[in-house]
Amino acid sequence: MTALIDRAAGLYPDSPASVLVCRNCGATYPLGAQHACFECFGPLEIGYDAERLSRVTREQIAAGPNSIWRYAGLLPVGQNPETRVDSGTGMTPLIRADRLADRLGFTAPLWVKDDSANPTHSFKDRVVSVAITAARELGFTRIACASTGNLANSVAAHASRIGMDSIVFIPSDLESAKITQTAVYGGTLVAIEGSYDDVNRLCSELAETDEFESTAFVNVNVRPYYAEGSKTLGFEAAEQLGWRLPQQVVAPMASGSLLTKVHKSFKELISTGLVDPVDYRVYGAQSSGCSPIAQAFADGVDTVTPVKPTGIAKSLNIGNPADGPYALDAVRSTGGAMTHVNDEEIRDGIQLLAETCGVFAETAGGVTTAVLKKLVESGQLDTSRETVLYNTGDGLKTLDAVSDRVAPSAVIAPTLKGMRSAGLL
Amino acid sequence: MTALIDRAAGLYPDSPASVLVCRNCGATYPLGAQHACFECFGPLEIGYDAERLSRVTREQIAAGPNSIWRYAGLLPVGQNPETRVDSGTGMTPLIRADRLADRLGFTAPLWVKDDSANPTHSFKDRVVSVAITAARELGFTRIACASTGNLANSVAAHASRIGMDSIVFIPSDLESAKITQTAVYGGTLVAIEGSYDDVNRLCSELAETDEFESTAFVNVNVRPYYAEGSKTLGFEAAEQLGWRLPQQVVAPMASGSLLTKVHKSFKELISTGLVDPVDYRVYGAQSSGCSPIAQAFADGVDTVTPVKPTGIAKSLNIGNPADGPYALDAVRSTGGAMTHVNDEEIRDGIQLLAETCGVFAETAGGVTTAVLKKLVESGQLDTSRETVLYNTGDGLKTLDAVSDRVAPSAVIAPTLKGMRSAGLL
Repeated sequence: MTALIDRAAGLYPDSPASVLVCRNCGATYPLGAQHACFECFGPLEIGYDAERLSRVTREQIAAGPNSIWRYAGLLPVGQNPETRVDSGTGMTPLIRADRLADRLGFTAPLWVKDDSANPTHSFKDRVVSVAITAARELGFTRIACASTGNLANSVAAHASRIGMDSIVFIPSDLESAKITQTAVYGGTLVAIEGSYDDVNRLCSELAETDEFESTAFVNVNVRPYYAEGSKTLGFEAAEQLGWRLPQQVVAPMASGSLLTKVHKSFKELISTGLVDPVDYRVYGAQSSGCSPIAQAFADGVDTVTPVKPTGIAKSLNIGNPADGPYALDAVRSTGGAMTHVNDEEIRDGIQLLAETCGVFAETAGGVTTAVLKKLVESGQLDTSRETVLYNTGDGLKTLDAVSDRVAPSAVIAPTLKGMRSAGLL
Repeated sequence: MTALIDRAAGLYPDSPASVLVCRNCGATYPLGAQHACFECFGPLEIGYDAERLSRVTREQIAAGPNSIWRYAGLLPVGQNPETRVDSGTGMTPLIRADRLADRLGFTAPLWVKDDSANPTHSFKDRVVSVAITAARELGFTRIACASTGNLANSVAAHASRIGMDSIVFIPSDLESAKITQTAVYGGTLVAIEGSYDDVNRLCSELAETDEFESTAFVNVNVRPYYAEGSKTLGFEAAEQLGWRLPQQVVAPMASGSLLTKVHKSFKELISTGLVDPVDYRVYGAQSSGCSPIAQAFADGVDTVTPVKPTGIAKSLNIGNPADGPYALDAVRSTGGAMTHVNDEEIRDGIQLLAETCGVFAETAGGVTTAVLKKLVESGQLDTSRETVLYNTGDGLKTLDAVSDRVAPSAVIAPTLKGMRSAGLL
């Protein structure tokens, strides 16, 4: 690993990141392309210089670009506008969801953070923007990923934007929209006969080969940088609320990373004084076809037992979630909850969000909306507390989930008579 | 029409709009829900109080919301944040397209304004946000449209957001993605056995019936307001360039309205002093399957002869374009040009934009990109002048255009051996 660590030397003069820290044992390492602890094999994450973070002001952020890079002072890379990859990701709408709030009986404001507005229409553009910037700063020449679809779209698009080679690995049974949307950008796309967990395992093996020494796997060897991108989901919600934290957030869980990083972002906003402390609660959503983290929560255990995923929410189908234990900790330590919903509830969730908010979500957003509803009905989520729901993807990528449920109200001839016979006039 | 005009009385205390003006004969009417001149049946557009427009400053705009409503001072409605419909539309990325510029031999900067980043992933969210705000301010209780798909998506989504009834009319042979994406929002969706022009004719008839007296057809009876929304495509490009106009713009043409309004926006920015005068040129793009405006340009005539549309660029398939003559005037008066491209060139255009910019456009964006290339090759577009290309829609809505052209590079087992046998290791 020496060569990789050397790559980092002197690369981050303006970065607030100071070190890689093992989330398991706390061991620290210099910043570089390392993702696992040499001592205990635990996952590494970025550690920051607290003094540097606390220098960031609301005014500096507001004066920054209309993208995630306005938060560069709170991210590990991208401080130099010349080398960072700004795809216009971030600053997605935070929608006041009054009609959904009414439907569910909320007395406090309910908001939908709609990440389908990102360039490739999922939250993955956030993590990929950070990862590809890190890859470039660390001297990699090719970018890669294991993906359930949205990440594939984003990696291929970002690579094409800057002219970097890409190689993307997906399960061969993905939704066709996600396959076409990845292949169209022109990089290498490898379909794997197996599950996402098989794909991920292969990528971990490949990352250790000589042939892939110059390849940055966004969610393997540069994962500590990549994962930090999800913090911007929390930063933006707070800024868009007028520099205030919501009292409750509901987020989908695949690896568990997104939810964990939203929690981390709120803690950082409080510790840097950018927002006042709030006693917020974090809620996690899974599909019943793949609910290992929610199951551990229900069982009251810390260990996440891997499962073989099924069900329509393919973008959440990670049976062996890397950040499961950390997601459990985030939810438990804040007094939140987790639950899961089945495929019919997911379809209902997509329609509920569309009909009340004008937001057409992919299956993952259906999961999150249906879980919100379920948690309200079970009394675990408090309708008198201000809440943010994260929609992480786009309905156009998973049309099959609802295409047999919705259709034109009538098919008629182009005449007033046609209107009358359909009862529309 | 008296009842409709009365609706407007006193509705616009802060609006810079002062009057409806006939684009044909110049007759003026009070602001209201009127779209055709009583004298000559010509189309009406919004006239403004020049003094009010000139009060708008860059600072006011920058302090506004991160949406089209930052330009409320230059729009006919929406000055009151309480009644306007802000769906988070606008402020879409202006992408520096260096790799496309290199491919086409540009020496000046080339930019892509990517409107697939809007909430329902097309520029139609701009015109609908303005139209539904006008409908609400004018006292309508239902919103409607004739659509080739993108407008249908946007009208249904906006209506669901604010809880207004909607009725959307589409040709029954639309792309299935656009049908599902409209139906999912839960309004009334009527599929018409006929072309877009048939649908449009039916809507014009319906708008005159008693049963539809309280229905705002966004592109019929509130069209003057609706059309102004496209000006924000020009305002944003100028602001994102640092309050500077580009020297050339390339825009797709269906009705011709978008291109006409971008031209109008540039003229307004100059006349209000928000930008310095620039000798800019406007270029128009059509599909060969439906090129009545480009044909009139090529023939050197002012009259647009209607055609029966064919070809894959369905969102541009308007055979009888309402704003054709005005688009011709915008292009001719600025020294620009128009041309058209066939279905294979459109598919090539989609891939070219995706491979060089990371932007996956629908067929309309393929048209515009292919026309840019063609105009460069014919020497009609100057590669030494700064240019903005408008991508107005999203590739996920027209997947069939490229799904048989792009595919995974390999399908393999999840092993290093699988990688080797595919020649990837």
